[in-house]
Amino acid sequence: MNENNNITMKDIARELGVSVATVSRALKDSPRISAAQKERIQTFAREHNFFPNMLGEALRHSKVQPMKVIGVIVPEFVHYYFMSVLSGIEEEARARGYRVMVAQSNERYDKEVAICEDFYKNKVCGIIVSQAKDTKQYAHFEKLMNNGVPLVFYDRICTGVNCSRVVVDDYMGAFTAVTHLVDTGCKKIAFYGSPMNMEISKNRYNGYHDALVKHGLTENPDWVRICDNRAQAEVLTPEILREENHPDAFFAINDDTAIGILYTAKRMGFDVPNDISICGFTNGDRAKACDPMLTTVEQRGVAVGEEAANILIGLVEGSTPTHDVEKRVVRTRLVVRGTTR
Amino acid sequence: MNENNNITMKDIARELGVSVATVSRALKDSPRISAAQKERIQTFAREHNFFPNMLGEALRHSKVQPMKVIGVIVPEFVHYYFMSVLSGIEEEARARGYRVMVAQSNERYDKEVAICEDFYKNKVCGIIVSQAKDTKQYAHFEKLMNNGVPLVFYDRICTGVNCSRVVVDDYMGAFTAVTHLVDTGCKKIAFYGSPMNMEISKNRYNGYHDALVKHGLTENPDWVRICDNRAQAEVLTPEILREENHPDAFFAINDDTAIGILYTAKRMGFDVPNDISICGFTNGDRAKACDPMLTTVEQRGVAVGEEAANILIGLVEGSTPTHDVEKRVVRTRLVVRGTTR
Repeated sequence: MNENNNITMKDIARELGVSVATVSRALKDSPRISAAQKERIQTFAREHNFFPNMLGEALRHSKVQPMKVIGVIVPEFVHYYFMSVLSGIEEEARARGYRVMVAQSNERYDKEVAICEDFYKNKVCGIIVSQAKDTKQYAHFEKLMNNGVPLVFYDRICTGVNCSRVVVDDYMGAFTAVTHLVDTGCKKIAFYGSPMNMEISKNRYNGYHDALVKHGLTENPDWVRICDNRAQAEVLTPEILREENHPDAFFAINDDTAIGILYTAKRMGFDVPNDISICGFTNGDRAKACDPMLTTVEQRGVAVGEEAANILIGLVEGSTPTHDVEKRVVRTRLVVRGTTR
Repeated sequence: MNENNNITMKDIARELGVSVATVSRALKDSPRISAAQKERIQTFAREHNFFPNMLGEALRHSKVQPMKVIGVIVPEFVHYYFMSVLSGIEEEARARGYRVMVAQSNERYDKEVAICEDFYKNKVCGIIVSQAKDTKQYAHFEKLMNNGVPLVFYDRICTGVNCSRVVVDDYMGAFTAVTHLVDTGCKKIAFYGSPMNMEISKNRYNGYHDALVKHGLTENPDWVRICDNRAQAEVLTPEILREENHPDAFFAINDDTAIGILYTAKRMGFDVPNDISICGFTNGDRAKACDPMLTTVEQRGVAVGEEAANILIGLVEGSTPTHDVEKRVVRTRLVVRGTTR
């Protein structure tokens, strides 16, 4: 990935028997490291023709102001939540003199890898990314980090690398939503989620589960299903609602799925919210277009984007050490509308 | 705007008594211009330290590959249609080796001006823009053009400058939609639009008007209103529907407004589509979230974005002369769903 040579900060660290963080600090002329150590590492880096792709570095050692460009990788543009995040990133970046370069992975691993390489070659000063559903290998992210490119994940974080990230409190969001369903009289609550290898799905399921336990309700395994979009919900829901013993409420991992449940329940003659209550997760612009309007967990994309840009710029400008890992959690908020009692 | 000197292509043209297009061609070493003329213009430009910000130029005269970056200005990110367009731009750009830098004007003129300057300083090779609602002066666009930065408008085109653009066939889209309302038995059709200084509103109104005339219906001026969002529609519609003589159909300039009409009509006890038919314009993701699902004109944002990037890259690479103006029209398509009979 490093075009001119194959050496990375990790290589230097291994070669000299120090940590990557120490190499990073030495190359950034940090006061947190001894002069002798600094000299040794800097000399080695120079001799091996190593130029870390760090803006902070460039700012200090170059007369020319490099482009302050943040690369943002989005699974898809036409998606309410990702665009809210991009909006927050751009606002924060612009206010601090940075520009934003964007690319969409279309949920594909190979495209994500190509974008990382392209952003690296074009010397973005850091990358903010929500990974593709398809991504199960992380070498492309590790390479960026080993080459000193600050990386921040949001929403779909990569559990394979230890890296800065911004997420929402998925667990608490789900716990609060399910508690609201219980408080409004629901006793038989179903959960529709994504596969459990996705961090957000696992956390939202745990919030759902613990809320049931706390209120003395038992989970029916038939009602905990992998179903995370409207088309799937419109296939699965009739099957579940046709049973005599059926749920009186659904908690869905996103608004799209919740809207699929809503339409199916109405078409089958159920009254929403009196027969069936429904709660989503996102609060995108569709939540107010459906009828009744959707009760949902507001995911605060703009705030997530601002936090992500804030962490990244801290890493880029060296106010946060490059190899420190920052994890921030943005609080969700339950928005009660017409699909719950 | 040109940082190092104040001279522009326009200045050179005036000084030498030639057109801006001729200056552009001379600086691009175009074969369409005489050697003597070329020499004269190039010498003048060199002597006045003029470096046009053109990628084609750079590609020919520089050893270093400049960054192939397209600047995209969007009124707001969290907006279905604009994101569809961005998606099309990014796909086309990436396929041709370009990257995309984005910024949102938040519908503000001052922000739009600042973004143009910032993009220019950062040497984007061209800019694709949908102008802010707020923008009534065009000097910032003219400056870019005079400095040889290719510019392409989409959706909200700037009528103040003669520039390449991609629009949808707003007139035909509206004409087809209103014809469908008439064909399904509607006789009293209202129009909700934006102020008529907006090109898209004027064209959609004209399509509406001509469809009425063609079918021997008369326009009721009380039913042609400035109303282009849901909140306004929820205030205005009860007033219109309370009258004994009220419309039996509404054609709205966008889906958001159409959804406002739909909810109001249902709340007032009207049956949609049997008492009141409704047609929108966009076909965003809310169109399938409302109930009944919305009949609407599909605006094909991805195709618009692809065309815009295509024109821009043509201008950048010199296959299209920089000062030629290309106008492309993308066809809309009526999507019939549940809000019309």
